[in-house]
Amino acid sequence: MAVRTGDQGQAAMNGLTEKVLTLDTMNQCVRRVEYAVRGPIVVRALELEQELRQGMKKPFTEVIRANIGDAQAMGQKPITFMRQVLALCVDPELLSSPHFPEDAKRRAKRILQACGGHSLGAYTISSGIPMIREDVARYIERRDGGIPSDPNNIFLSTGASDAIVTVLKLLVAGEGRTRTGVLIPIPQYPLYSATVAELDAVQVNYYLDEERAWALDVGELRRALHQARDRCRPRALCVINPGNPTGQVQTRECIEAVIRFAFEERLFLLADEVYQDNVYAEGSQFHSFKKVLTEMGPPYATQQELASFHSTSKGYMGECGFRGGYVEVVNLDPEVQKQMLKLMSVRLCPPVSGQALLDVVVSPPEPSDPSSAQFQAEKQAVLAELAAKAKLTEQVFNEAPGIRCNPVQGAMYSFPRMELPPRAVQRAQELGVAPDMFFCMRLLEETGICVVPGSGFGQREGTYHFRMTILPPMEKLRPLLEKLSQFHAKFTREYS
Amino acid sequence: MAVRTGDQGQAAMNGLTEKVLTLDTMNQCVRRVEYAVRGPIVVRALELEQELRQGMKKPFTEVIRANIGDAQAMGQKPITFMRQVLALCVDPELLSSPHFPEDAKRRAKRILQACGGHSLGAYTISSGIPMIREDVARYIERRDGGIPSDPNNIFLSTGASDAIVTVLKLLVAGEGRTRTGVLIPIPQYPLYSATVAELDAVQVNYYLDEERAWALDVGELRRALHQARDRCRPRALCVINPGNPTGQVQTRECIEAVIRFAFEERLFLLADEVYQDNVYAEGSQFHSFKKVLTEMGPPYATQQELASFHSTSKGYMGECGFRGGYVEVVNLDPEVQKQMLKLMSVRLCPPVSGQALLDVVVSPPEPSDPSSAQFQAEKQAVLAELAAKAKLTEQVFNEAPGIRCNPVQGAMYSFPRMELPPRAVQRAQELGVAPDMFFCMRLLEETGICVVPGSGFGQREGTYHFRMTILPPMEKLRPLLEKLSQFHAKFTREYS
Ligand SMILES: Cc1ncc(COP(=O)(O)O)c(C=O)c1O
Ligand SMILES: Cc1ncc(COP(=O)(O)O)c(C=O)c1O
Repeated sequence: MAVRTGDQGQAAMNGLTEKVLTLDTMNQCVRRVEYAVRGPIVVRALELEQELRQGMKKPFTEVIRANIGDAQAMGQKPITFMRQVLALCVDPELLSSPHFPEDAKRRAKRILQACGGHSLGAYTISSGIPMIREDVARYIERRDGGIPSDPNNIFLSTGASDAIVTVLKLLVAGEGRTRTGVLIPIPQYPLYSATVAELDAVQVNYYLDEERAWALDVGELRRALHQARDRCRPRALCVINPGNPTGQVQTRECIEAVIRFAFEERLFLLADEVYQDNVYAEGSQFHSFKKVLTEMGPPYATQQELASFHSTSKGYMGECGFRGGYVEVVNLDPEVQKQMLKLMSVRLCPPVSGQALLDVVVSPPEPSDPSSAQFQAEKQAVLAELAAKAKLTEQVFNEAPGIRCNPVQGAMYSFPRMELPPRAVQRAQELGVAPDMFFCMRLLEETGICVVPGSGFGQREGTYHFRMTILPPMEKLRPLLEKLSQFHAKFTREYS
Repeated sequence: MAVRTGDQGQAAMNGLTEKVLTLDTMNQCVRRVEYAVRGPIVVRALELEQELRQGMKKPFTEVIRANIGDAQAMGQKPITFMRQVLALCVDPELLSSPHFPEDAKRRAKRILQACGGHSLGAYTISSGIPMIREDVARYIERRDGGIPSDPNNIFLSTGASDAIVTVLKLLVAGEGRTRTGVLIPIPQYPLYSATVAELDAVQVNYYLDEERAWALDVGELRRALHQARDRCRPRALCVINPGNPTGQVQTRECIEAVIRFAFEERLFLLADEVYQDNVYAEGSQFHSFKKVLTEMGPPYATQQELASFHSTSKGYMGECGFRGGYVEVVNLDPEVQKQMLKLMSVRLCPPVSGQALLDVVVSPPEPSDPSSAQFQAEKQAVLAELAAKAKLTEQVFNEAPGIRCNPVQGAMYSFPRMELPPRAVQRAQELGVAPDMFFCMRLLEETGICVVPGSGFGQREGTYHFRMTILPPMEKLRPLLEKLSQFHAKFTREYS
């Protein structure tokens, strides 16, 4: 090998160098990662926006980005109190300004008091500011009807994404047929498949039941698990509730069944609960895995390992840009917990402004506080509008022939199924793209509507979907839904 | 195996469950990670602070955290203009407040204009806001005397840490003796060893020359490389300039030699330049790898692959908590660059407040702007005080018998070498800790001074060091340095 390297050195001197880092020599796990939410459709959407700005003629005047769960990008206003507290933390000179309500000032002072040098500019300990972790624990206790939460089990993170990757990273071990298998729902939020690929773990798909409003069926979990056992060692089960992209909210019975299954099969549970505040459908209610597991009593309550994730990006605040989030771990081996903290400390700490924001999310103004009324009004207005948009989406899509949409019980997306004519499927195959990608690309080019093909999230073979957020403002949403349905009809005629 | 699993399932039902995730079953690469900057010394420092608050008697009244490069935690004030712009971005209602200078408002509006929904609360594209990347490119061009920089080669990140991990991740491939080897300096900033361990790459140490003020010697690079070739495939060379923990600033000749070496040996260069604004010593000057490489002309300028990292955490602003940073890539294979963007997009985007802060760092007020004078005055005051503290540190330590300190030419740390009496070394070995860890722990317990043992950064076998930041305020620094020197003398007496 020394000789080969010498040759390469010689080649280099002769100006014949190949790059050190190429597609062939790079990390092949990274190369295998796929990430549709920001894939070719989105790249093309950005180009189209540029072309519109340059004055090019298009059959539409604006690109509507219904591809990503980013409320403020779609015009949702931040919650006033949150931004007031943050601005005071960023520039404490404002603490003497009459512009700000007294409770915002009190909250900002309390946060700054807990920061190194009383500044958002200092690193925090790697698990996040202790006071904020205490506030998170109290939030969880209130949410779960008094079930205790220990701040030492809470780790703040750079968005939920960061925490999810960290927990998955801990779980990856083995080689060949003993590699860690991770059960993920199909359709899924593609962070999961991407991370599993990056970590060289084995993705084990379990399918949500579209016929039963995307319910999670334990029989299907069992099938997936048993089929996976001869190619990997399944050790983790990821559940997204409320679901992205599927919008279902799991029943308590379902969650109990999943916990029993995980316990019996010795699976570490990852509960992605970033949409816990986004529940709209009548009869639907959010149940946290932590609460259900605890109420099931021993051995589940005392032994089942669980990580539950939350974020500032969703809910009613939609503060994606601040990258706030946390994970609560339950029944984690204390030695592993130390390892987790060590791992996090390599990257120093999560963004402190995101930590501060999270603090306000988990401890909103008390009813007696001056900002309470406005806070609640703003929050309820956002949630009520989201609920109305969820309903409208389901309704309009279900009126369209060839489109069928499950109720959007929660989260921020519809994931309708569409029929595509065989000739369109064939044409897509000739072009080497997934049929629903072909549809979505044509949709974008002709209407400016940007949605993500179902193939980016996974779907049963031979079915076609797209994911569309319910986030566009109400006055734009109805025309959008109708335009999309009409385009589907036209597309169907064109190819039949 | 199916049977074994069944047994385990049965065991579980009988309440005999072992955890799914234990030290033995977890990711063993993560388990091997070491991270001293936040290790046992820091844990103990936190405990001591708690004990002091609870009124316990100690031989000191306050813990001084000289362990981490966190300027604001040590009392440094944020740069006024930066916080003004940020506060305006966070709470745009303030744009109508007379409290803020006109140029801060202009800057905030410009940043908001470039954000989705004109809000810091929207995700940005994964490489960061294009306008800010353009500003970064212009900053680099100014810094490098006009050498062009392409915004498409700039990726914003969650602190420099995030970008460093991303680039290393791309480079990791192979198995057994073909695994990627990464050359890192010893002593090093432990992010490098930690990331190499986590990624299961091979750490290849090259030693900085303490006798020549921690110079980087190409002969030593060659030795390290050739010795490593039979256990791995060395593909990356990390350089930290100005150095952490060693404080040296590399000469232009040295950088040229390193670039030639990297080119001849086909190594991807990672230049950690987060301390580029922290150069104090007379005769020392910062030369960026990009500039030197470009000025060397072809084939270096046209072919040598390089990633250069910068951060908002250091310099004169010390805004660690905002987690702003960027990497500029040079001569990267365009296909790999696409892969890098894909990888980053899985985590959505870096914190937007950190992006906004970075924008102000790379484009400070123009001389004609109302905030310019104050900005420059604040910046120069910080840098002048750091320079004075660098000098004082070197001087006081070198007056102490048994301590020898190289000049702190740049960065934020001294890394003095100390003699430890053989009996202390023996005692440490009996206790199973590194001798300098033993010293630092005793120092902490008896004086409240928290510094990090040299063993956390790596050092030549049989030598002992500690890293101490130069960040404590001037009035505390001299007594601190003297107290530390006296403790060393007492410790030496005690064990001889
Ligand atoms: C199900 C789910 N989990 C996690 C995330 C990550 O969000 P963030 O990293 O912004 O907290 C998202 C974002 O869309 C999501 O939909
Ligand atoms: C040499 C070096 N590189 C990178 C970093 C990472 O800094 P950050 O992630 O805060 O930008 C540090 C922090 O101390 C450092 O000293």
